[in-house]
Amino acid sequence: MKNVLIIGCGLLGSSLLRRIVKKKLAKKIFIYDKSKKNLAKIKRLKLPGTIVKEPQDAVAQSHFIILCTPMSEYKKIILKLNNFLTTKHVFTDIGSAKLKSEEIIKKNLKRNIFWTSSHPIAGSEVSGPEHGKHNLFENKWCVLIKSKKTSTKHLKILATFWKKMGSKTVIMSPEKHDKIFSITSHLPHLIAYNLVKTAQDFEKKQKYDLIKYSAGGLRDFSRIAASNEIMWRDIFFNNKNNVSKAIDLFVKSLNAFKKDINSKNNKLILKKLIQTKKVRSKIIKLKQDIDKPDFGRD
Amino acid sequence: MKNVLIIGCGLLGSSLLRRIVKKKLAKKIFIYDKSKKNLAKIKRLKLPGTIVKEPQDAVAQSHFIILCTPMSEYKKIILKLNNFLTTKHVFTDIGSAKLKSEEIIKKNLKRNIFWTSSHPIAGSEVSGPEHGKHNLFENKWCVLIKSKKTSTKHLKILATFWKKMGSKTVIMSPEKHDKIFSITSHLPHLIAYNLVKTAQDFEKKQKYDLIKYSAGGLRDFSRIAASNEIMWRDIFFNNKNNVSKAIDLFVKSLNAFKKDINSKNNKLILKKLIQTKKVRSKIIKLKQDIDKPDFGRD
Repeated sequence: MKNVLIIGCGLLGSSLLRRIVKKKLAKKIFIYDKSKKNLAKIKRLKLPGTIVKEPQDAVAQSHFIILCTPMSEYKKIILKLNNFLTTKHVFTDIGSAKLKSEEIIKKNLKRNIFWTSSHPIAGSEVSGPEHGKHNLFENKWCVLIKSKKTSTKHLKILATFWKKMGSKTVIMSPEKHDKIFSITSHLPHLIAYNLVKTAQDFEKKQKYDLIKYSAGGLRDFSRIAASNEIMWRDIFFNNKNNVSKAIDLFVKSLNAFKKDINSKNNKLILKKLIQTKKVRSKIIKLKQDIDKPDFGRD
Repeated sequence: MKNVLIIGCGLLGSSLLRRIVKKKLAKKIFIYDKSKKNLAKIKRLKLPGTIVKEPQDAVAQSHFIILCTPMSEYKKIILKLNNFLTTKHVFTDIGSAKLKSEEIIKKNLKRNIFWTSSHPIAGSEVSGPEHGKHNLFENKWCVLIKSKKTSTKHLKILATFWKKMGSKTVIMSPEKHDKIFSITSHLPHLIAYNLVKTAQDFEKKQKYDLIKYSAGGLRDFSRIAASNEIMWRDIFFNNKNNVSKAIDLFVKSLNAFKKDINSKNNKLILKKLIQTKKVRSKIIKLKQDIDKPDFGRD
């Protein structure tokens, strides 16, 4: 890796930047961000790297290009870069829905250019370069996407890159990726948004002041319901088929549960409540969460 | 407060015990727990207090009685205590559903005995006396229930008691309490259990190993889905009417959201995602959660 171009320098882009600098992985780093607010923050934070006015300005000088914008920006960016891209560029993105991205890329990227897609499972409810940190990817999974046209060489380069970012890597097809994350990430976010919305609607209708009693459970959901709206709109739109199916499965489960509590089906409810408990232990054993009660909050 | 009897010495009971001892609020403390496992833990932890074999054994010597068992134990306990209770006893419980408790009490408690119900909004996914802590109630809300037959004198004694536990108190009718907590606590727990169940079912059906990718959102839900199954069965059963209505409201919201993503209703989806973000800031401002991103986990 010689020179790197980071397009979109928010939470994830700036975390990559910090890590690359810390590990001295690049000769030069170029940064593009369309947001003036983000650029002002990058300057104020004195983040290293050369800011470019247009993403294409740094393509000729870069070997590695990482796209860290919301997915709805992909097309516009690709069209700007096309004239400057060569087969030697290693090009990746970090979007959370992959089938639709493939479609956009196929349709818009210049022929014979490789794009090897990544999805680091790292993020937070906060966004912007001020929240980035060099260890954001430490011990987190990064999914690398392999489809028919993927270059094995580029896939290997990317696997090495993400390992240097601190991640564990795994290779998946875009189909499998989109199914798995519709359940483990997209559905939970969608549920969190809708639970908070239900509470807001109820508060308005009943004229009860209820948000202040959120410590009983609601507050946990409010965290992920505070995630970036552009990023999440793009994810829901770009994975809408899998997300719709996930909603249906979940609603089916909810309605069965409702029936069981209304008929006081003691045996079945206890079985369900005990069964789901096991997942927490598994998640902690897999080091996907900390083991302290209450996330160690208090 | 002279002598205290704590019936049920798990997470909440043992936290009350620790606090009462730390603040030197009682002359003598009696403990009853039907679980041999809990009693062994209490002894091993060298928690202060006199363990009694039956709850009624300490009633005559106690002034303040706190029931901290799951709600399904109430009837049995009340019937054991009845013969020993006098109008001088200050009697409370800490259950999370109040209308049904009132019904059980009305039906089983000896006439003219006061029972003033409390609900401290404090808890965790862990249970048992080993997890109790003296500051569990610090800055947490405690709801005191006022209905037709509530003694104002006892209500005042209880308010003073919970303030000494570190809580902020608020008075509500059982009806209002059960509605509010069906949304801010019972629905979130029920959703968490069912989301984890959906993920388990999906994993089995698709033969995908997906729990290991739970850092994208699922892990947050797995925490409250690991809560005590007896306690939560009792809550769902005892507040089933409000909980059913809450499920219906939530499912309606989910289905509308599904329709909006399938029709790519950009404006409406963005409006919803921005609207729900505000609740997080409100919760943090109200000091109902910590302000660090990601619950300060990493």
